[in-house]
Amino acid sequence: MVALQPPHRGATRVRQNERVTDVLAETISRIQPLDAEALADAAARQAQLTKPAGALGVLEDVSIRLAGIQRTCPPTAPRNPKVAVFAGDHGVLAQGVTPWPQEVTAGMVENFRAGGAAVNVLARACGADVLVVDIGVASDVVEDDVVISRKVRRATADLAEGPAMTRAEATEAIAVGIQIADRLIDAGADLLLTGDMGIGNTTPSAALIAAFTEASADLVTGRGTGVDDETLARKTAVVKRATDRVAGIEDPVELLAEVGGLEHAGLAGLILGAAARGVPVLLDGVIAGSAALVAAALCPAALEHALAGHTSAEPGHGIALRALGLRPLLGLDLRLGEGTGALLALPLVASAARALREVATFDSAGVTEKS
Amino acid sequence: MVALQPPHRGATRVRQNERVTDVLAETISRIQPLDAEALADAAARQAQLTKPAGALGVLEDVSIRLAGIQRTCPPTAPRNPKVAVFAGDHGVLAQGVTPWPQEVTAGMVENFRAGGAAVNVLARACGADVLVVDIGVASDVVEDDVVISRKVRRATADLAEGPAMTRAEATEAIAVGIQIADRLIDAGADLLLTGDMGIGNTTPSAALIAAFTEASADLVTGRGTGVDDETLARKTAVVKRATDRVAGIEDPVELLAEVGGLEHAGLAGLILGAAARGVPVLLDGVIAGSAALVAAALCPAALEHALAGHTSAEPGHGIALRALGLRPLLGLDLRLGEGTGALLALPLVASAARALREVATFDSAGVTEKS
Repeated sequence: MVALQPPHRGATRVRQNERVTDVLAETISRIQPLDAEALADAAARQAQLTKPAGALGVLEDVSIRLAGIQRTCPPTAPRNPKVAVFAGDHGVLAQGVTPWPQEVTAGMVENFRAGGAAVNVLARACGADVLVVDIGVASDVVEDDVVISRKVRRATADLAEGPAMTRAEATEAIAVGIQIADRLIDAGADLLLTGDMGIGNTTPSAALIAAFTEASADLVTGRGTGVDDETLARKTAVVKRATDRVAGIEDPVELLAEVGGLEHAGLAGLILGAAARGVPVLLDGVIAGSAALVAAALCPAALEHALAGHTSAEPGHGIALRALGLRPLLGLDLRLGEGTGALLALPLVASAARALREVATFDSAGVTEKS
Repeated sequence: MVALQPPHRGATRVRQNERVTDVLAETISRIQPLDAEALADAAARQAQLTKPAGALGVLEDVSIRLAGIQRTCPPTAPRNPKVAVFAGDHGVLAQGVTPWPQEVTAGMVENFRAGGAAVNVLARACGADVLVVDIGVASDVVEDDVVISRKVRRATADLAEGPAMTRAEATEAIAVGIQIADRLIDAGADLLLTGDMGIGNTTPSAALIAAFTEASADLVTGRGTGVDDETLARKTAVVKRATDRVAGIEDPVELLAEVGGLEHAGLAGLILGAAARGVPVLLDGVIAGSAALVAAALCPAALEHALAGHTSAEPGHGIALRALGLRPLLGLDLRLGEGTGALLALPLVASAARALREVATFDSAGVTEKS
């Protein structure tokens, strides 16, 4: 774990920044390792179920981890899952890293509000609520029950040219994520799913993954929404330039401020906030994976509370998941974001919990065990 | 497609066998290729949804295939899915291919009846009904709403020593599968899931996969429920001996009779019966995959109506799926059978259909497309 640095001095919002840094430190201080007794009980219970040992594969690991997070065995299947979709814009669009115009971020926020986006459809399919958080959309966003505004700034600066945001802004955006976790859990959420929207946001994701894992820019940079060869070459060069600039920086918040995005900061905060409350987080794709690297650097135990919904088509995502030690539940070549890959994995998490709770034991069912 | 051979003469049940062979031929004659117009409409509609083209990955292919099967666009998410669990016993247990005793098959049928098995729990989790079909359990099985008996014979003969069953029995068991498909579809099923129970049934599965794909015994034979090295060596030798014996046989029903199982025959019939009714089938693991090879050999178009729920830890399954041209939706190292892997994939199929139907188009949402 890299120690947190004190916030920059000389800013106009010193007092507020000290407060949000305190929020971050206090949140991290509350994150506990998983409950060892519940983990052991869950593993023992798995061995008694009427099926060959290990026959439910990865879902057995999921059920045991859920028991450790919920600190009880058997764990309960999530009944009130909520997706937080952090939306932000990116100054790096000036480098021509995507053919999509910046206004699509705000356009998709309106699509989320109307219930017409993929995240809405998949959330309805599995009974999850959607909350959209404007953490840095370039234009004004109207608030209602579905969309709230916690704008830290209007889009990041161009990370190819200099820091995407100040350290104070990055810290504030992490604190927004923590507050959103608290808000959703206070409203009854027993599992949080990560979502994101931000035209251009696979570029800061690639830069964060390169910065945290030391993988090269060409390994972590992908086609995002499907860019052509020329755009991919430009994007890779931008990622290389940004990560070269931050070589030697070890503080995770500083790295986030330099090459990340506001939604990445919000997601890192959501992961930390959920872990502090003992609530599992189901991660979506490469945006969440890169944000999780920030959270893991701040507090490794936070990631014990996380599950990886899927591995995306974006090449940096697999590298991030390996660095995090997370095995993805799905591999469907998704590259949509919004929280869609996490939502698609949610029924697997629920089924894993139900299997551990509801499958009969050899004793209770009177089934003979193998010799 | 290998031509069907006439049934063996000289048997005592010639008339009945002619009738069931007619059922099979008539069923195959009703299987149509997917609807080309619905396939084209679905592909065109995918391109208009408010997301980058291809961003839903494999689920886009699933949605298009569902449109082709249902012969309409957009397709409807399955509302009434039903699992058919075919249960049978295996004479090859005499070779010591598994540490589990034969009585566990009947014991698990009772567990299914009581609702305590993994298939019951996962079916409840996704709203699917379970029907258990005794197609060849060695002992008597009581019938009720959950379990029905269509016993073709009490366990197969030992496939290591000679044919597992007669050609007439294999044909009859396929006809049982067709009848079960009809029964479930008549009761409203709009998607069928394959399930199976039979101690020892990964051995005939491996033998079928070796026989149909010409892969070697050591490549297709796995640890099933988790056998030790010595048992695996015995099992591999049995598979080699059986497939050596049938080298040169090309008729799929003959191969099934020689080295298959009764539940494999029932599943092959279920796949054909569902295809004949234009209803999608979601395949479970290696037992279903090997049965699907029989169905595909009898009628390649039948498999256009099938989706692969997952790829199991059993090595032959991946080989079978590649031969069938099916990409599995899940890869969770499952090796449980019963229909569990198909049930876990069901929410993905439903979400794929809902996404194609419900996600807003760029026009309707007023979102700008990429330049």
